[in-house]
Amino acid sequence: MKNVYFFGVGKADGTGKQKELLGGKGAGLAEMTLLGLPVPPGFTITTEACTYYYQHDRTLPPGLEAEARAAALQVGEIMGARFGDRQNPLLLSVRSGARVSMPGMMDTVLNLGLNDETVQGLIERTGNPRFAYDSYRRFVAMYGDVVMGLKPETEKDHDPFEEILDEKKRARGVERDIDLSAEDLKDLVSRFKAEIRTRKGVPFPEDPWEQLWGAIQAVFRSWDNPRARTYRKLYGYPDHWGTAVTVQAMVFGNMGDDCATGVAFTRDPATGDRRFFGEFLVNAQGEDVVAGIRTPRPISELEEVMPKAYRELLEIRDRLEKHLRDMQDVEFTIQRGKLWMLQTRSGKRSGRAMVKIAVDFVAEKTIEPKEAILRVDPNKIDELLHPMIDPSATKKVIAKGLPASPGAAIGKVAFSATEAEERAEKGEKVILVRVETSPEDVHGMKAAQGILTSRGGMTSHAAVVARGMGKCCVVGASAIQVDYRKGIFTAGNVTVRDGDVITLDGSTGEVILGTVPLVPARLDEDYRTLMTWVDGARRLRVRTNADTPVDARTARAFGAEGIGLCRTEHMFFDPQRILAMRQMILASDEKGRRAALEKILPMQQGDFLEIFRVMDGLPVTVRLLDPPLHEFLPRTEAEISEVARALGVSVEAVHAKNEELHEANPMLGHRGCRLAVTYPEIYETQVTAIARAACLARREGVTVLPEIMIPIVGIEGELSRLRELVVTTFEQVAKSEKLTVPFTVGTMIELPRACIVADELARHADFFSFGTNDLTQTAFGFSRDDIGKLLPIYLEKHLVEKDPFAALDRDGVGKLMGIAVEKGRKAKSGLKIGICGEHGGEPSSVEFCHALGLDYVSCSPFRVPIARLSAAQAALKAGNP
Amino acid sequence: MKNVYFFGVGKADGTGKQKELLGGKGAGLAEMTLLGLPVPPGFTITTEACTYYYQHDRTLPPGLEAEARAAALQVGEIMGARFGDRQNPLLLSVRSGARVSMPGMMDTVLNLGLNDETVQGLIERTGNPRFAYDSYRRFVAMYGDVVMGLKPETEKDHDPFEEILDEKKRARGVERDIDLSAEDLKDLVSRFKAEIRTRKGVPFPEDPWEQLWGAIQAVFRSWDNPRARTYRKLYGYPDHWGTAVTVQAMVFGNMGDDCATGVAFTRDPATGDRRFFGEFLVNAQGEDVVAGIRTPRPISELEEVMPKAYRELLEIRDRLEKHLRDMQDVEFTIQRGKLWMLQTRSGKRSGRAMVKIAVDFVAEKTIEPKEAILRVDPNKIDELLHPMIDPSATKKVIAKGLPASPGAAIGKVAFSATEAEERAEKGEKVILVRVETSPEDVHGMKAAQGILTSRGGMTSHAAVVARGMGKCCVVGASAIQVDYRKGIFTAGNVTVRDGDVITLDGSTGEVILGTVPLVPARLDEDYRTLMTWVDGARRLRVRTNADTPVDARTARAFGAEGIGLCRTEHMFFDPQRILAMRQMILASDEKGRRAALEKILPMQQGDFLEIFRVMDGLPVTVRLLDPPLHEFLPRTEAEISEVARALGVSVEAVHAKNEELHEANPMLGHRGCRLAVTYPEIYETQVTAIARAACLARREGVTVLPEIMIPIVGIEGELSRLRELVVTTFEQVAKSEKLTVPFTVGTMIELPRACIVADELARHADFFSFGTNDLTQTAFGFSRDDIGKLLPIYLEKHLVEKDPFAALDRDGVGKLMGIAVEKGRKAKSGLKIGICGEHGGEPSSVEFCHALGLDYVSCSPFRVPIARLSAAQAALKAGNP
Repeated sequence: MKNVYFFGVGKADGTGKQKELLGGKGAGLAEMTLLGLPVPPGFTITTEACTYYYQHDRTLPPGLEAEARAAALQVGEIMGARFGDRQNPLLLSVRSGARVSMPGMMDTVLNLGLNDETVQGLIERTGNPRFAYDSYRRFVAMYGDVVMGLKPETEKDHDPFEEILDEKKRARGVERDIDLSAEDLKDLVSRFKAEIRTRKGVPFPEDPWEQLWGAIQAVFRSWDNPRARTYRKLYGYPDHWGTAVTVQAMVFGNMGDDCATGVAFTRDPATGDRRFFGEFLVNAQGEDVVAGIRTPRPISELEEVMPKAYRELLEIRDRLEKHLRDMQDVEFTIQRGKLWMLQTRSGKRSGRAMVKIAVDFVAEKTIEPKEAILRVDPNKIDELLHPMIDPSATKKVIAKGLPASPGAAIGKVAFSATEAEERAEKGEKVILVRVETSPEDVHGMKAAQGILTSRGGMTSHAAVVARGMGKCCVVGASAIQVDYRKGIFTAGNVTVRDGDVITLDGSTGEVILGTVPLVPARLDEDYRTLMTWVDGARRLRVRTNADTPVDARTARAFGAEGIGLCRTEHMFFDPQRILAMRQMILASDEKGRRAALEKILPMQQGDFLEIFRVMDGLPVTVRLLDPPLHEFLPRTEAEISEVARALGVSVEAVHAKNEELHEANPMLGHRGCRLAVTYPEIYETQVTAIARAACLARREGVTVLPEIMIPIVGIEGELSRLRELVVTTFEQVAKSEKLTVPFTVGTMIELPRACIVADELARHADFFSFGTNDLTQTAFGFSRDDIGKLLPIYLEKHLVEKDPFAALDRDGVGKLMGIAVEKGRKAKSGLKIGICGEHGGEPSSVEFCHALGLDYVSCSPFRVPIARLSAAQAALKAGNP
Repeated sequence: MKNVYFFGVGKADGTGKQKELLGGKGAGLAEMTLLGLPVPPGFTITTEACTYYYQHDRTLPPGLEAEARAAALQVGEIMGARFGDRQNPLLLSVRSGARVSMPGMMDTVLNLGLNDETVQGLIERTGNPRFAYDSYRRFVAMYGDVVMGLKPETEKDHDPFEEILDEKKRARGVERDIDLSAEDLKDLVSRFKAEIRTRKGVPFPEDPWEQLWGAIQAVFRSWDNPRARTYRKLYGYPDHWGTAVTVQAMVFGNMGDDCATGVAFTRDPATGDRRFFGEFLVNAQGEDVVAGIRTPRPISELEEVMPKAYRELLEIRDRLEKHLRDMQDVEFTIQRGKLWMLQTRSGKRSGRAMVKIAVDFVAEKTIEPKEAILRVDPNKIDELLHPMIDPSATKKVIAKGLPASPGAAIGKVAFSATEAEERAEKGEKVILVRVETSPEDVHGMKAAQGILTSRGGMTSHAAVVARGMGKCCVVGASAIQVDYRKGIFTAGNVTVRDGDVITLDGSTGEVILGTVPLVPARLDEDYRTLMTWVDGARRLRVRTNADTPVDARTARAFGAEGIGLCRTEHMFFDPQRILAMRQMILASDEKGRRAALEKILPMQQGDFLEIFRVMDGLPVTVRLLDPPLHEFLPRTEAEISEVARALGVSVEAVHAKNEELHEANPMLGHRGCRLAVTYPEIYETQVTAIARAACLARREGVTVLPEIMIPIVGIEGELSRLRELVVTTFEQVAKSEKLTVPFTVGTMIELPRACIVADELARHADFFSFGTNDLTQTAFGFSRDDIGKLLPIYLEKHLVEKDPFAALDRDGVGKLMGIAVEKGRKAKSGLKIGICGEHGGEPSSVEFCHALGLDYVSCSPFRVPIARLSAAQAALKAGNP
């Protein structure tokens, strides 16, 4: 096992591609070295060594020490110095570097190699005792903190070295570190060492090699510190990756006014504009830029201060972009006028910048349009569609939930839908905070700027409804404890009261205390250029899940090619209609049910007509009623007596019906097509409304393509029976209207049995549409309403790698889908098959649907562009557009 | 289309095998005719004609009349008479006959062909005017009732003809019909006809042919009468079968003392003994035997009365048995000393008789042992294992539910488990009546003689627990309305109060008012002979589902070859243990949970030890904890405060935990292996108890073969992680006990995803066991707790042909099982696979399991013999024992 990868003066053992082995930092340094850029020599200890360390009771792998000694010698030769040499000491930096950037999560040791002897050599070589002792005291403090474990565990506790430093400054009557003399700093070194001895009972190690082994292990250990662990959990990075350690010759930006240090992006990471973007500080070390004690200057001013170094930096910027074919984020140091590159990596960027840079790179002929398509992270496209949190803003994140519906929202906390609505009517911006939401909360959700729940997953009620509304939503923020009675929620030790302002980031799931500045949404020319390429590259059609004309209009503007799922149940929740619906449910016979349904019919007809108008020329798939009837009944005593009064029935009758319809497992109960088996008049009414609306639209000259879809089918007889009902009802209307309106009838495939008997179902279906929410529930035996508490544990223990309700489970649910596609198309070749579950807008799921040979995906309006891009990427990756 | 099948004097168009076309009666008459037995000639109109009649707006098929006229002519020729002839009239009977016997459900018309002219011919031919007018008045009344629709709709209303008859008897001052003179009877005929004219506005048809067409159509119509419809629904016979109509020359048992009529079984239908069994009446018609006005005499007495006819009957009995190779149920009439056979069919028999007759037929060399095995209906075997209702008893059935657990039970109604227990302790026999049961009712179920529920299916809690206890249980008797508050239940217009006596028939699902005599259970020599053949013929092993030593002992006595499912949750419901279990659930951390589990450990250990002792030498599969924890928490306020007091926690804490653990869909929630992912200490404790018990048993010299089974696995990681936990824990115990106890670890396959990833699971499993209850729930998306109301509708509309929770759904669930078997054995050849769902004891499901290549089925103790027999039948049918 090779543990150590050397790099220096044009040669490197590794390359830029080996991020998994060398970490992002190590790989970048190797690549820059190979490019002949000025990189201080050094070596990278692999992530495999880190893995070994953890698997072997925290011991370094055999051979590592010898390899590192040889590499350090080589580094010294290049730098004209020797590690540990008292005349001419080589100093090293020891830095962590995982395969992905985890800013500030792991530890670093700088100026390593100093002791009471080598510091003298440094003074002699630099002629600058103040610099030497400043470096020395920084090193001892850093080493004491990081390697010897004196760093306080929480931010509230004091760092012992800081305390000694403050004491010194008080004693010397100065305010700033920089006003301390060389002698003061030397004294600090002794005091720091004494503090270490007192606290740890062992002396500070004077042996540079001992320092090195200690620092390497400390970096390895920092992979497992609580901050890093939490961070990984938050972002879903697995624990087994480990970190690499890069040991590099120190270069100093703080040796005087001909020195500087800085960070820069090769383009503007917020806008994507082609301008060199960054900041620097003269006479400083890298930490100072980050620490914010002095205000850095914009990179453009470097041209005046150090024109030669600036020109070289500009040249390097171009070379890096051309060579690495992407926007870079670099760190550099200028030591006595000489430029050194300390890091390069792909720069993080906003969604807008991601699009612009990809499109510009094509214009600059650096990449092909195909590559531009593959470059854009579909999830980041979202940022272009919603106002979002200013990336440069500082923010106090108090909890993190699931990013259920993107965008950002700022408002005052309200704990009930009614209150949210009332306060919104008075012009207040509110955030609705609930443990979870139910259909009764929809009016409050509509009124709110954003929705936050402490329970539920990516397909919980709140998430689905909010996405439909294109409204920012964070769900399952399990760190939050909601206390409705007290009108507060707590997150850790933070208490948020009714009326307090919070900000939600629906793209990251962050819950932020107070207000954070937002940037508005905008679809620009670059976006349109990219999407033209995208549409040329994809095979999958993209439809939308839209229940209202507003949603349909939004989706069409986002490029939806039809409606793949128009849920009809939301049409019943309007206050006007819910009463008729309740009357139907409370009716004791078919006659009573029909009378109530008659009231609802014209309203649904109006809804459909408006949707058909909006979708002129495009197909509209209407799913007939799906949820169990008890969802429509009133719950609270107040509501129950109100309904009883309004309908002229007894309170007991409403109670009795509630009890009669109660189910132990409503998800597996009397819903979907089962409702129509028992009460055919419900579907009859719905189909009549659809058919009448279609005829009216037709007369207006609208091209209507209704596709009527039956939910929760698991048995051939259900579909054959209901298909007949739909066809007969529709044709009756068309006949009486003396019109021919083409329509099709299909089925949801959302039960395992439906997949298994797909050949039988295909005989009675013009199309299939996968309902992967329910299919995931039944395949796993996971209730999406209950899985919220279990899922984090399953993710943490790697029993599942992703939330299967967010990203399709290919191995299980996906195989069932595969069976259904195969059997369905075998029975009816060319059968149209789509997906209308929440997965239809999730990139990896869209990719899978492409591979499965589906005809279309359908997703919420705001995910349509994401699905289009994902479909194109899938086609390009598969090589079969 | 041939509508009419003639039979007479040794010739017949049909045969005994054509029951579907000719009905049971028509086929039997054809067969007897072909055998040369004395059968009055006649013809059968097919069931297809009946189907035609219903499909064509109640019209007879073209050609039927002509065919029937020709056949009637032929009949007349044989009988030396002519239909409608005034000198020598042929009289006909018109009888219904479906492919299965539906006693008394459909209509019959006798003496057809009489009118004012032909009755004179009859008088001349017989010289018996009283007989002729008696036949005539019977015919007119029957025709008026059946064909012309004067029969009252309910039993409460009076028959108009009965009223006239009573009036006549009063006027003549006589008590009995027989005391009326020929003149009286002649007068009745006129009055009956006048009544028909008054009520219907049309005259009684004098034309014999018109009478015939009317009677045939009336029989067809009677297939659709409310009684017949209800009967079919009850027994699951489809509506589309239709009935045949047999038209036959009348023979008369009522022409004088040289005449008789009777019914007989060729062997005793209750015991199976080889004795001629039946009854007869001298000078009577068939109806008189059934009507019960006169007491029939035992068949043996016929030898004295009519020795020649009796000898002939005995001879026919032997010929029929030899020829049809089964016990027969025959009807006969003796007219002036001549024997006529009117019906033969396979005789219904008790389970005991079924076994004895099959074994005796082998001894008599009529059939082979293989055929004997195939002859016995596995479900009837049950009757040998339980006391059952005396087949000859009369009973008032007030409702019919699902026959969830066989046997019979008599007791006083109790509506709560606690009351049932209290009253049982005082020596009262009680029947527990509930809407449905929950684990909290188990103590009451134990105390009760039988259990009746108005909701739930064959795998509802009540059904499963009762079968486990071998206790009579009827579930889902939806005609019953339970009102706990009033302490009553109603069934139709019958009200049953707390304390009233009812009888349950767990083998038929009948709920009977009052007491019915029972016959005790007995396993006799014939049973043992049959089962020896059975065990030689089957490949599938048969295990039992047993949670207690008592169950295990019962099952072993019934031939179980191991325990296939030992559920451990019932071990927690004992009052002593439930408190510790609740303490565990209420504990706030692992330490608290472990402390509570420590209390439970020795108790579970004791349970396992006892079970291992009972099952010495046989494998015992223990399923680790499966149900969600909230099932163990107290529900009522009283219980909650009791638990809070006992555990020294606040009532609020219990409430809070109840709320915390509440799930929207518990069936898809935090249960099974998911519990062990979050709280590994639960399974650790259970495995420790199993391992310690196994070591103790081992030391006693018992051969223990523990198989530890993980429930609700759907993901490879769940199984690999928990397998490791089980192995580590078990081996630790064995090591500390210094013993080697072989054990295996396997998984339930009860989720669709588990079937799909069975290859991955097989890597970590020594065995699979199908949990087809949960698999049926998730494959169909049917909650077994909620499906009760929907299922009857699905059965009625033929969306499913059988309750899929009772009989395995081969097309859906079965295919998923097939995928699992194939993938599992592909990954691990020879993988042991069984089934431990409720289907493991259901004959058609056992047959499917045989075909699927499973190694064993496991079922409740009392179903073990059924499963053994079913397994043998499956092997014989498949031809691959």
